Amino acid sequence: MREVAIIGAGTTQFGELWERSFRDLAVEAGLRAIEDAGISGDEIQALYGGNMSAGRFIEQEHIGALIADYAGLARLHIPSTRAEAACASGALAMHLAVLSIASGWYDLVIAAGIEKMTDVGSDSADELLASSVDRKWEVIYGATLPSLFAQMARLHMTHYNTTAEQMAQVAVKNHANAVHNPFAQYQHEISLESVLASPLVADPLRMLDCSSIADGASAVVVCAAEKARQYTDSPVYVKASAQASDTISLHDRRDLITMDATVAAARKAYQQASLQPAQIDLAEVHDSYTISELIAIEDLGFVKKGEGGKATEAGETALGGRIPVNPSGGLKACGHPLGATGIRQIVEITQQLRNEAGKRQVPGAEIALTHNIGGTGGTAIVHIFTR
Amino acid sequence: MREVAIIGAGTTQFGELWERSFRDLAVEAGLRAIEDAGISGDEIQALYGGNMSAGRFIEQEHIGALIADYAGLARLHIPSTRAEAACASGALAMHLAVLSIASGWYDLVIAAGIEKMTDVGSDSADELLASSVDRKWEVIYGATLPSLFAQMARLHMTHYNTTAEQMAQVAVKNHANAVHNPFAQYQHEISLESVLASPLVADPLRMLDCSSIADGASAVVVCAAEKARQYTDSPVYVKASAQASDTISLHDRRDLITMDATVAAARKAYQQASLQPAQIDLAEVHDSYTISELIAIEDLGFVKKGEGGKATEAGETALGGRIPVNPSGGLKACGHPLGATGIRQIVEITQQLRNEAGKRQVPGAEIALTHNIGGTGGTAIVHIFTR
Repeated sequence: MREVAIIGAGTTQFGELWERSFRDLAVEAGLRAIEDAGISGDEIQALYGGNMSAGRFIEQEHIGALIADYAGLARLHIPSTRAEAACASGALAMHLAVLSIASGWYDLVIAAGIEKMTDVGSDSADELLASSVDRKWEVIYGATLPSLFAQMARLHMTHYNTTAEQMAQVAVKNHANAVHNPFAQYQHEISLESVLASPLVADPLRMLDCSSIADGASAVVVCAAEKARQYTDSPVYVKASAQASDTISLHDRRDLITMDATVAAARKAYQQASLQPAQIDLAEVHDSYTISELIAIEDLGFVKKGEGGKATEAGETALGGRIPVNPSGGLKACGHPLGATGIRQIVEITQQLRNEAGKRQVPGAEIALTHNIGGTGGTAIVHIFTR
Repeated sequence: MREVAIIGAGTTQFGELWERSFRDLAVEAGLRAIEDAGISGDEIQALYGGNMSAGRFIEQEHIGALIADYAGLARLHIPSTRAEAACASGALAMHLAVLSIASGWYDLVIAAGIEKMTDVGSDSADELLASSVDRKWEVIYGATLPSLFAQMARLHMTHYNTTAEQMAQVAVKNHANAVHNPFAQYQHEISLESVLASPLVADPLRMLDCSSIADGASAVVVCAAEKARQYTDSPVYVKASAQASDTISLHDRRDLITMDATVAAARKAYQQASLQPAQIDLAEVHDSYTISELIAIEDLGFVKKGEGGKATEAGETALGGRIPVNPSGGLKACGHPLGATGIRQIVEITQQLRNEAGKRQVPGAEIALTHNIGGTGGTAIVHIFTR
């Protein structure tokens, strides 16, 4: 298999973008990535687009053709594929793009993620989010996504003495990071007190424990590593791309507070990259809820199982800490336009490994990891990158 | 790139399957394919599932995890990917499965297609079908899928003197073939007169010019060719797998009655296989409407442009004709459960190339082609197989 590299990355603003349509967002992200790579659109051989639920959000399927069309690439008749794995759709698009290059089928493709969530009311968006878990055995009985993560949080608290304050620290940290991210939905700090005083969504999770509904799109240009230097002096190499599944419903899991899909994908990724968790310089992980980040940093091997809360409280995952997590601001502060998130994480990593992340920069970052899950962990996808 | 083979194939009944759920259908098709291949479920390394719109039909996304779970494979944490390209989702899943094997990432995977359409009323299904074309510039102005194909039909009639009788012959032929297909939704003949007397859906297309709404799932076991003989004495080899895009909206096309995506995918496929159209022994093509089959057989190079109607009338595409098309009964008589169709076509080809198609058998079939499109041709995917 050939080595694969990223030679360009771009993202739209994330947020409530009333004035911009799904197709506008997709094209804007793609153009930013292309411009960043310094390539011509005609060099693109295929598109891979991650999207969770345009069918329900904007009554539009056939997203692959739509994007190719509005990107002006339909005239070249290039293959355009939509990948879906709920909130992990973005990373799934990247996984397929990596495969398409590693295999030798293509030399230069685009992986993108897009979601336009705010054209429906927020009640509806909540209902739509629940389509990422088991409609028949969870949703129909009243489970929502926050309520399922609340069960994990409660059990984590009971089992490991994790506190509400420790969870809240995830939100505080990620908002502090996002102050320096011009593409984040919320570029302001929040205090521990404000998280703990925010309204309960599903006990023990409060409003500021939850990532937000947003619109957004992100894209990266993926290229055969041996050709990357033709385009850029600072390629970012894809050292691992690993995907794993688990039961779609939480109640069927072996363990409610270990995401076995994350563990399996991470194990495979570390093997592919011949790396250990301790060698990772920074990570973008899936903090759809504050508890998600605690579980993620445990399951990825950055801290021991059950010590996610303590490590966060001790600042180990802050900028300047032992292993900075979500320097971008994460899903919490960037906003979480479902299918876009997995690629937005990779855009951040690309900037970090190029030493272009400004005040969010992790000094000397050489090895970075992204972690993107679908639903409550029915899918997990882990990528590892080096400069 | 490694050679790829199919070692097992299976399908559910297609039709209005009120008593069977989406997940039941997916598992049934998978089990039939696994049983046919004589493998154990534990040997499966990844799943690729094609599905157009479960989000809207059954309010369920995250189809990859759902299928892995209900197939009992989530415990192995194998990657499970949902691919979407509207009505071409099935062939897209196959395309990704082929890539995953050809690249060397996996040795044995499943490609499946599933759609459960009858849990919503037929008015809604019509609305949902329209999400395969441009919501913003077609659907919102009243265009439905039949109305767009009706425009193609009218132009084909004007331009090439194609007649309503010639289009109707497609339906008559495909129903005649389906008499011998136990999995088809309609296993009975229809007369030319009945097609021409059926109610207008969108002038000039009548009810019996249109494929039908159905539930169904199909699956194939895809394997590295060098390992195929461990499992079967009659592997079916994948000689080409090619995907192309075009504008999502019909009015933006270079030519309304040539599907450039089909032409581009076919050209690539013939190149990959080092074959010419005249060497194809039989084909399963995308007859979502009778006019679709006429345009397909022209764009695939089986007949000259504009001569699809005449060739059909002359019996060239019938069983026993020069190039039998849709021996299964096609979308017209098998029913068209969107995401399932592309794989159902491949199941038929597998049986044909193994000489197991019973009374539908094309004698001595050695080389076969499948053609699956999304929407009005925004995506086209062509596969070529040999025994």
